Amino acid sequence: MKVVITGGAGFIGLRLAQRILEIGSLTGPDGKSAEVDDILLFDQALPATRPVGLDERAHFESGDISEKATVSALVDRDDISVFHLASVVSGGGEKDFDLAMRVNLDGGRHVLEACRARAGTPRLVFASSIAVFGGAGMPDSVGDQTKQTSQTTYGITKSICELLINDYSRKGFLDGRSARLPTVIIRPGKPNAAASSFVSGVFREPLNGENFTLPVKPDTVMPLLGYRAIVEGFVKLHELPAEALGDDRAVSLPSLTVSVAEMIEALQRVAGNRHLGEISVDPDPFIEAICATWPQDAYSGRAEALGLPKEASLDEIVTYYIEDYLGGNA
Amino acid sequence: MKVVITGGAGFIGLRLAQRILEIGSLTGPDGKSAEVDDILLFDQALPATRPVGLDERAHFESGDISEKATVSALVDRDDISVFHLASVVSGGGEKDFDLAMRVNLDGGRHVLEACRARAGTPRLVFASSIAVFGGAGMPDSVGDQTKQTSQTTYGITKSICELLINDYSRKGFLDGRSARLPTVIIRPGKPNAAASSFVSGVFREPLNGENFTLPVKPDTVMPLLGYRAIVEGFVKLHELPAEALGDDRAVSLPSLTVSVAEMIEALQRVAGNRHLGEISVDPDPFIEAICATWPQDAYSGRAEALGLPKEASLDEIVTYYIEDYLGGNA
Repeated sequence: MKVVITGGAGFIGLRLAQRILEIGSLTGPDGKSAEVDDILLFDQALPATRPVGLDERAHFESGDISEKATVSALVDRDDISVFHLASVVSGGGEKDFDLAMRVNLDGGRHVLEACRARAGTPRLVFASSIAVFGGAGMPDSVGDQTKQTSQTTYGITKSICELLINDYSRKGFLDGRSARLPTVIIRPGKPNAAASSFVSGVFREPLNGENFTLPVKPDTVMPLLGYRAIVEGFVKLHELPAEALGDDRAVSLPSLTVSVAEMIEALQRVAGNRHLGEISVDPDPFIEAICATWPQDAYSGRAEALGLPKEASLDEIVTYYIEDYLGGNA
Repeated sequence: MKVVITGGAGFIGLRLAQRILEIGSLTGPDGKSAEVDDILLFDQALPATRPVGLDERAHFESGDISEKATVSALVDRDDISVFHLASVVSGGGEKDFDLAMRVNLDGGRHVLEACRARAGTPRLVFASSIAVFGGAGMPDSVGDQTKQTSQTTYGITKSICELLINDYSRKGFLDGRSARLPTVIIRPGKPNAAASSFVSGVFREPLNGENFTLPVKPDTVMPLLGYRAIVEGFVKLHELPAEALGDDRAVSLPSLTVSVAEMIEALQRVAGNRHLGEISVDPDPFIEAICATWPQDAYSGRAEALGLPKEASLDEIVTYYIEDYLGGNA
């Protein structure tokens, strides 16, 4: 079978591809396990060099997800599954509303229509976000039964895609599953336009020996999940039988609720005698305003009952990052 | 100022136009009361004869709401308000998914973009529906804080428009207000494609001396509201200051929760010595299946605190219908 990953050149897209290649097979549209012979990583730009951990089964293609014919051409086999990760991120969506609507909403609809056009009902895993929550009526802790009233265009488009995936699944056009992601850490490489970019930066830059300026106060609290658990969650969600999900295909992934101060403590504990860059605080009103709209805590009993994983602690997440990206033991 | 009513040739659209002409003025985009000098009633087809109660300020235009340029041309003044009522209904949406997406979702987006293109922030009142609720996780009573997981394409598109209106309002592109309507009774004229069409039919056909076959069991329960309260609710919601609504612009209108058996009792009480056609029961699985996805009860404390009205009883609703459409006292 073929696997398409939109946003496939991104951090999570690449790790997901590596993991699927490692496993070697997934459940196909007919409900039977099938060998994956082709993983197509679609993104707006190709990676400059071929990423490690991808063999000849992996192919890259670049294009604009807001163009219907482009997306339709990606989903060109009936024995196929799609992981739809491509998205304008939160800060980017606040700065360019039309781009967020074009990529997240129009692009999302094109992905759904491409799946619908196939014989059978391809499985689709969608990367939603706990940014779907927000607003004055938001409870202290959010979950699968919480009304979604995001105060960002990013969150609104994620809510809309969750709704569409429920309806396309109900109609039998595809077999969709939406994973509501908390803030994902620790992203390697450069900061991105996500308002939450600092949550990876506060670990990554000091570990690189660079000083880091926090754009929020250290008592800022948020739900987090490590990238290994995110990738495992995507794969497990793909493999679940549709009946396990019922008529609401969207689940909040498990998460750890921690403060920025606790992140810094975990970093210092795990880093051992590595030299760390210094961390200072200089709040950025744009970032703080977006953070203030996010939920502070999330519950995920349903995801946990479905067997979707989380790391045991922040320390474990930092340890994995040092193993995976800094080539060493903590 | 100008007022545009999409779905303006429909039952509620026409009554709303009559009511606005009667009042004569509304609050304009600048927050000041302005005389209404033009009401444009837009619909897919023109009425065969000019409806009563509309003077020379009212104009009709027919067209396809899924065509962006058509919708854009309707909203051609800055001193303008829009009541967006046009919609594929519930039963129609289940039979033609693509039509529902085109009219309800694409059409809705065109209306929002047309408002956004004006200078200032036009007020927009959107007819949403309690059909946004549904699914296995739905509580017994639904309201403004209930997660929306509709099991119809109609409901899903209404949820999406509520979300988009919240975001367009937050961005200052327009000043939106969504009214979540329960089943509206008593529609005059012919049955329509709404799965709830029978709820008007069970009053209307017997009052016309015609026999009526109920497609659901008499113990079927649902929240209802009379057309007079719906129209007053739309006008009041339009006139409220934006601050009264906060960051979630959608409110469930007040409603009466009654069983079909109670509807028949009210009809018999109010009809007095009028000859009534006979009512029989022959459940229709298609209608029953859609009804089963709807909420049985709704709460509307927020709408009531905002001063949005409801009739005191079913008897009052039947009395108004006899006054308004059967030219007589009950």
